[in-house]
Amino acid sequence: MTGEDADDEDFEEVVAAVGERIDPGERERERMREAVAALTERAEDAIADLPVAGDVIQVGSTARGTWISGDRDIDLFVRFPADVDREQLESYGLEVGHAVLPEGREEFAEHPYVTGEFDGFDVDLVPCYRLDSATDIKSAVDRTPFHTEYLDARLDADLAGEVRLFKQFLKGIGAYGSDLRTRGFSGYLTELLVVEYGSFRAVVEAAADDWHPPVRFDPEDHGTVEFDDPLVVIDPTDPERNVAAVCAARNVARLQHYARELLADPREDLFFPDPPEPLGEGGVRERVGSRATTPVALRFDAPDVVEDQLYPQLRKSLAGVRDECERRGFDALRTATFADDSAVLLVELEVAERPAVERHEGPPVHVRQHAEGFFGKYADDPSAYGPFIDGDRYVVEREREFETAAAFLESDALYDVALGVHVESALQDGYDVLVGSEVVRLADEFGEELATYFDPEP
Amino acid sequence: MTGEDADDEDFEEVVAAVGERIDPGERERERMREAVAALTERAEDAIADLPVAGDVIQVGSTARGTWISGDRDIDLFVRFPADVDREQLESYGLEVGHAVLPEGREEFAEHPYVTGEFDGFDVDLVPCYRLDSATDIKSAVDRTPFHTEYLDARLDADLAGEVRLFKQFLKGIGAYGSDLRTRGFSGYLTELLVVEYGSFRAVVEAAADDWHPPVRFDPEDHGTVEFDDPLVVIDPTDPERNVAAVCAARNVARLQHYARELLADPREDLFFPDPPEPLGEGGVRERVGSRATTPVALRFDAPDVVEDQLYPQLRKSLAGVRDECERRGFDALRTATFADDSAVLLVELEVAERPAVERHEGPPVHVRQHAEGFFGKYADDPSAYGPFIDGDRYVVEREREFETAAAFLESDALYDVALGVHVESALQDGYDVLVGSEVVRLADEFGEELATYFDPEP
Repeated sequence: MTGEDADDEDFEEVVAAVGERIDPGERERERMREAVAALTERAEDAIADLPVAGDVIQVGSTARGTWISGDRDIDLFVRFPADVDREQLESYGLEVGHAVLPEGREEFAEHPYVTGEFDGFDVDLVPCYRLDSATDIKSAVDRTPFHTEYLDARLDADLAGEVRLFKQFLKGIGAYGSDLRTRGFSGYLTELLVVEYGSFRAVVEAAADDWHPPVRFDPEDHGTVEFDDPLVVIDPTDPERNVAAVCAARNVARLQHYARELLADPREDLFFPDPPEPLGEGGVRERVGSRATTPVALRFDAPDVVEDQLYPQLRKSLAGVRDECERRGFDALRTATFADDSAVLLVELEVAERPAVERHEGPPVHVRQHAEGFFGKYADDPSAYGPFIDGDRYVVEREREFETAAAFLESDALYDVALGVHVESALQDGYDVLVGSEVVRLADEFGEELATYFDPEP
Repeated sequence: MTGEDADDEDFEEVVAAVGERIDPGERERERMREAVAALTERAEDAIADLPVAGDVIQVGSTARGTWISGDRDIDLFVRFPADVDREQLESYGLEVGHAVLPEGREEFAEHPYVTGEFDGFDVDLVPCYRLDSATDIKSAVDRTPFHTEYLDARLDADLAGEVRLFKQFLKGIGAYGSDLRTRGFSGYLTELLVVEYGSFRAVVEAAADDWHPPVRFDPEDHGTVEFDDPLVVIDPTDPERNVAAVCAARNVARLQHYARELLADPREDLFFPDPPEPLGEGGVRERVGSRATTPVALRFDAPDVVEDQLYPQLRKSLAGVRDECERRGFDALRTATFADDSAVLLVELEVAERPAVERHEGPPVHVRQHAEGFFGKYADDPSAYGPFIDGDRYVVEREREFETAAAFLESDALYDVALGVHVESALQDGYDVLVGSEVVRLADEFGEELATYFDPEP
């Protein structure tokens, strides 16, 4: 990578080739249109049978023409008047959903909704309120139609193509998606940034050169709230909302890094990278040996909750375990959490052992009552060295509770750490502690994650 | 030890018994008087032969009757007018000194002076200026006659006995002496505190109960300067001087601790403790093993300088070595320095090894020029992991310079530490690094110091 950018021509060739791969063809668009039309008709028929008014609106990337070729998600929202109460809304919504997708099943996000297949597409039928303004919303789904309306008016076919390039680029670098595992760029955020800058290339050039987080955009110039996020894009439909609230600093920085890469050396593999070669037991063993660290891993059955619950809990638990290890003197170099059938909290330690004794400072000698209490407590403790005086204080060297990180992790003291609630109960059902080269046993299930961990890319 | 103090009677019995042991008898006093008279006469005769006026004054504890029985130090100061220049003063001083002590030898403190034996006493003959006020002094020795004059007027025979008790108590707890090895209570300070409180017991009760450092006294109520020391006693003969400037916080606290001990359980052995039983190789090995620490020691030939130079340099060097060990990740539990024929810097480590890699944070990715420089530097470094992005920054895990504290101590990087100048040149002449149980080899020379280190008393 250099500060010099490559020729325009190279860049345009690359994005043209990428476009070939991701732009939906006419036949794909036609099939999508037909499916949406059929589903909408079914939904309108079902609404007509209800005692309230309602309409159907297509939302999401397939509504805005910004979907990547091959995506098969159709999102239809059924809107009801604001004076329908919530229970009624849910029951009407499910009724329409089942009428449209007789084979569909119910799921639950903000409301219950029906999801199912139709003609090869994955269809969600979601009830919401029809409101005058996005600031009146009763739940997050009510906001979605406003987003679609806002972007419908601003995204033409050309800009939709630019959005697809940006989305694919973010997918390639692993920063696409506002789910709480990825904490990246949502589709809506991607679209707003392309509308703001006018093209994929302009976004990339700005990210490479001009962004100094916190970066702030307010397309409608109506924001009323200060946000503490690295990227702030005030929702054009809601002055109090940051569309990029979930986007982690690391993903903003990674966009900046890879934007520079793309401009310096345009190439398709940034959009379509090969997944990392999984690391086998031997590879893990070799890396642990050459780093001379002591990785310790807690492995347990992954809690049965959705990813948007799981990953925040894993991260919280990991931070808690790391902090407590460090408080006890077991300094960490780096950490990671993985989840599949099992879940893993990995803390790679620089210091896995401490002496049998630890320094414990008492009060200043001149604070007579406290000082005498401290002295009396330890003077006859045969396991303590001291009390002696250091500066103006009593000090003892007393027995350390845990001499190794593994002993701490295997003890009930683990539960004094702030753990995610489902992680805590999963640990209580049992867990393994892997120490040092024992972590090679993770390679079977998490070879790809271990490759990313031990051979990190930006 | 409890907060309850023992009976007055017990206390008085103990100090009476101590007094028996430390008060000089009439015969000792008489011999002292005779020796001082004879020495003074010799000095006056010698002064009479000089082309300037001069007088002789006895100073120090033997002048003030506050010496401990058995002390054999006689300090005589020869005073010359303030208009004599320094070189002349020194030459006159030595002339008188050699006349008084024909077998004496020259030493050098503030001025050259003559020291020798007379009738079984150790005699110092020191030249100084005769001044109107201690604030006019040209060097520290000029102040001494003022101290003697001040105390002569305030110390009667009873108070002198109280001073002796306090001195002996401070000797017993190891806090007596303003030399830079001890950093304790000087004789003059001891006397001023007894004058302030009126008795040994009153000093001890105040230290036990009332002192909350910083403790400040200003007997003449004339202090003009703020001091940042735990104990401040403004010199009655000099408003700008803290008599207790050299007294370390630890020694003030130890006086407070042992004062409470004495009041709670009066006993002679606090005044006359047994020296610690030297620790042998086996004892050191046992303690290192049960503590499970890694002591590392630098051993080298003790620099040939006076203790008042040696100990500050050893302490400075020890602090420098400890800080650099810790900066490199080798956390210390405790440190000590010993000196006899050889000198030792001992750092007892909690962490003696670190991994082959260390975390190295680069700039935030958005600071393009720095960020690209950092990325370019490490991207092709096969020994580095990364660069990867953590938060908004590039990070690498690069090779650590020293994986063990011993490797650091054996390298030239040791000389980047702030070392005392004579310690540095002594190290350059060669040193041993003892690691872990190898420190048992120190027991031969430093058994008593190691006993104090491993079985610390307050």
